Amino acid sequence: MEAARAEGRVLVFAQGKPLIRDGALAYLTSRALQSLGVSGVPVLFLGLSGEQAYFALDLPVDAIAEAAAFGVFADQRLTMGGLPAAEAAIMAEALGVLNWHASHKFCARCGAPSAIAEGGWKRICPSCETEHFPRTDPVVIMLVIRGERVLLGRKGSFPPGMFSCLAGFMEPGETIEEAVARELLEEAGIAIGAVRYVASQPWPFPSSLMIGCHADALGDEIRVDEIEIEEARWFGRDEIRSALGRPLGDPAMLGVPPKSAIAHQLMRAWLEE
Amino acid sequence: MEAARAEGRVLVFAQGKPLIRDGALAYLTSRALQSLGVSGVPVLFLGLSGEQAYFALDLPVDAIAEAAAFGVFADQRLTMGGLPAAEAAIMAEALGVLNWHASHKFCARCGAPSAIAEGGWKRICPSCETEHFPRTDPVVIMLVIRGERVLLGRKGSFPPGMFSCLAGFMEPGETIEEAVARELLEEAGIAIGAVRYVASQPWPFPSSLMIGCHADALGDEIRVDEIEIEEARWFGRDEIRSALGRPLGDPAMLGVPPKSAIAHQLMRAWLEE
Repeated sequence: MEAARAEGRVLVFAQGKPLIRDGALAYLTSRALQSLGVSGVPVLFLGLSGEQAYFALDLPVDAIAEAAAFGVFADQRLTMGGLPAAEAAIMAEALGVLNWHASHKFCARCGAPSAIAEGGWKRICPSCETEHFPRTDPVVIMLVIRGERVLLGRKGSFPPGMFSCLAGFMEPGETIEEAVARELLEEAGIAIGAVRYVASQPWPFPSSLMIGCHADALGDEIRVDEIEIEEARWFGRDEIRSALGRPLGDPAMLGVPPKSAIAHQLMRAWLEE
Repeated sequence: MEAARAEGRVLVFAQGKPLIRDGALAYLTSRALQSLGVSGVPVLFLGLSGEQAYFALDLPVDAIAEAAAFGVFADQRLTMGGLPAAEAAIMAEALGVLNWHASHKFCARCGAPSAIAEGGWKRICPSCETEHFPRTDPVVIMLVIRGERVLLGRKGSFPPGMFSCLAGFMEPGETIEEAVARELLEEAGIAIGAVRYVASQPWPFPSSLMIGCHADALGDEIRVDEIEIEEARWFGRDEIRSALGRPLGDPAMLGVPPKSAIAHQLMRAWLEE
């Protein structure tokens, strides 16, 4: 690990926020890390690009202030959308695994402290020998279609005017299609027929895989559960087309997630069908 | 929990094997459980069907022998395929959550013993208050298509003559399509173009969600990694059609997984395209 790090480029995070410089991920050298007094902190091996090894590291708290000399620790969700696709993928990979280490330092089977192995891609319990791998939680997110209208909902935590696709964690024992049907019945009282997979997106906050679908509603009467979402409504093509083309922010108009979000892509795909 | 169990029907497992009677899941009553000396064992609430509550329970080791009076503890993988779809789904749900409890008795964040909550659908750490939810691991499984032939591989653990679709666990930070491409490059040296989602299937051994896809190969030269699989080969339509129609068992002929397996469905879907 030490030898490889000496030659590698290290993507650093401060409490989940990536170091950014000039709009791109800022990698630090081993010399820069040494100047910050960082050593012996678990490092994740991201891979090789030619001869160049790439790593990721979650900075210890006492190194964060000085590391700011090398760039800006940016909001991780906003950063995902602004980076080129390849950089966003590297960031999602690194953040997903680092988040997992931060919350899985102990063996869930026996309670003993576990140890990092295989360049950060595994943890092993020295007590009961159980191997643990990074967790990825599948989430279904779906645009519900009823003729020329689609269903969007809003959580109480959304900015005023913002609506998005409904979504929920998959449960053990169900297919993607069954999860879509269960969530829509629970959250909006909508029964559905056909489900069509559209696209997927990793969303490492902390560890989701968003599985995006279109679903055909069998009726249009909405019964919101008011726990998960505070309101759900049908929107027409013109409303969706306008909302996709303008930034969030005007509380008097429909706002939808930005282009980088899979919810946006699900709406765009419907318009273009 | 106790009050509900008194009126409920309980699906029981012995070390992961479901109790089966007359080819169907055998539910026990609270009276039957009492006769086995079972009390205070964590019970999972599966849901209501009308007024009838359904639960699942992993039998303590000392109750297993006597419980055999109520039916047979059947192989869980073979049982999945033989049950009607609704029963297979209930079994997958119950087994997925019970498997998770069995291997997650401690808080992965702080190492303290955690407690069952919400009818078995959650664990809470009394020490650091972290909430833990059942884990579902997304796995991509793919039929690789090259004109009129498809790629199948075999592991060393397969019976002689058996081949199946290639598959692998998704990693943090990747889309479904990226996981399909990475796995095929790693395991068989095959580069791919388009990926099409076909179907999904829960596979609770212990906690997978199988995401089934078709993928178009860009070439036909195979380089097997020999760690994951021992051989991979291209098969034509006639070979696949014949194999789908006969049971596994003749080592001199191609054998493929049974109809209940998603690998079988991926081959069937390709033939019917």
